[in-house]
Amino acid sequence: MNIVCIGSGNVATHLAIAFKAMGAEIVQVWSQDSKNAEILAALTKAKPIQSWEELDRSADCYVIAVKDDAIETVATHLKGVKGIVVHTSGATAMDTLAGAGSGYGVLYPLQTFSKTKAIDLKKVPFCIEADRPESLEKIAAIAQLLSHEVAEVSSEQRKILHLAAVFACNFSNHLYHLSSQLLAQHQLKFDLLKPLITETAAKIQYASAAEVQTGPAVRGDEETMRKHLDLLKDSPELHHIYELLSNSIKKAQR
Amino acid sequence: MNIVCIGSGNVATHLAIAFKAMGAEIVQVWSQDSKNAEILAALTKAKPIQSWEELDRSADCYVIAVKDDAIETVATHLKGVKGIVVHTSGATAMDTLAGAGSGYGVLYPLQTFSKTKAIDLKKVPFCIEADRPESLEKIAAIAQLLSHEVAEVSSEQRKILHLAAVFACNFSNHLYHLSSQLLAQHQLKFDLLKPLITETAAKIQYASAAEVQTGPAVRGDEETMRKHLDLLKDSPELHHIYELLSNSIKKAQR
Repeated sequence: MNIVCIGSGNVATHLAIAFKAMGAEIVQVWSQDSKNAEILAALTKAKPIQSWEELDRSADCYVIAVKDDAIETVATHLKGVKGIVVHTSGATAMDTLAGAGSGYGVLYPLQTFSKTKAIDLKKVPFCIEADRPESLEKIAAIAQLLSHEVAEVSSEQRKILHLAAVFACNFSNHLYHLSSQLLAQHQLKFDLLKPLITETAAKIQYASAAEVQTGPAVRGDEETMRKHLDLLKDSPELHHIYELLSNSIKKAQR
Repeated sequence: MNIVCIGSGNVATHLAIAFKAMGAEIVQVWSQDSKNAEILAALTKAKPIQSWEELDRSADCYVIAVKDDAIETVATHLKGVKGIVVHTSGATAMDTLAGAGSGYGVLYPLQTFSKTKAIDLKKVPFCIEADRPESLEKIAAIAQLLSHEVAEVSSEQRKILHLAAVFACNFSNHLYHLSSQLLAQHQLKFDLLKPLITETAAKIQYASAAEVQTGPAVRGDEETMRKHLDLLKDSPELHHIYELLSNSIKKAQR
């Protein structure tokens, strides 16, 4: 299978390298950033390109992994190409690609990627969607090259999944940040909290989050909550977050 | 070393079993709950007791692992005992134990415990504090039986640590819960999010949370945030949480 990779960021890098490892050929890497395109092209023995005139229009698959707001423009350049066109975005409707390629769809890896950290893609859920059954079959085959966890998810559902990921992951990460700041202000190392963070994320792999909720709010321990709010009286933002989330925990238990 | 274990809940169970495994003798398990006392006593070959009259007053160490608001009352029963007295609470001042034992202090394992899930205590940070240097030495020796991670933490610092743990863990777990509800409402499995949750908690083991923050708020992607808030327009609580945490992320980047 010949693949053109459009984009050279974290997602593009992880996917292109994994495709290559599974025996696919990355024929070209398109990127506005010539430096990044060259790096990824070198890693995957592909040709780096920057202009659409150079695009190989006969590849089997075009994988778009660029910023969300650039997907629509990229798609206009992929009208009439031979292969199937997919984007990899959680937040972009499939029909943004309407008219591109011989069929189009979505190949959304539900994971957070950093260039410097290896990820076992086999365990990453890939959410797929397609314009028609023939395309779905092709995209499923492509997804299964990369992962054991492939699920068909509609554009509407994908929006919710992306939103749920913001709550479960982006917001949790920010809470890690807020707690690390709180510790630093009192000469305490964030390292002390790391095992607890690991265990909190591990617990919900096998039990529902509601079942394993701990802390003063779920115990109805008003005295401790009052003391905590008092400690936060000079940090209005943390005070507000503490109140809102504690009340939400209390409500969830009813 | 002879230990009396006061309490028979999650923390008491994990600690008593670990002490036993390290060669200490659990001579008694005191608990108001006779059933739980019997179970833990059986697991550690100890004698279950329910009345203070039966207390062995010559043990080397008395480990209090009861609900926070019961610690003070328990301490009154431990005046004049031969050994050292420690409580295991994150939120209770050391001096709640004033006058108990031949010395007193805190042995606080910074971890979340369930009776049904094994924990490697060796990697759990134990925060210790003592009424005087001689007690600190003894408590440090006891803590080092259980863990490689022993840190001296004052009562003031321990309050902050507990508060930071509420943010990083109790609140994160609640966000997992909210996202699982959101998914269920749209016929999506929470399983899809689990690898992302694992990776989010794994990333901050080696990088600062601020460095690895992802999502629309940190990118300043107002369009996606507007769409997300629109999806939440009938869930005022989630809407409020989304706005507050997104604004907090934006502020943190300045």
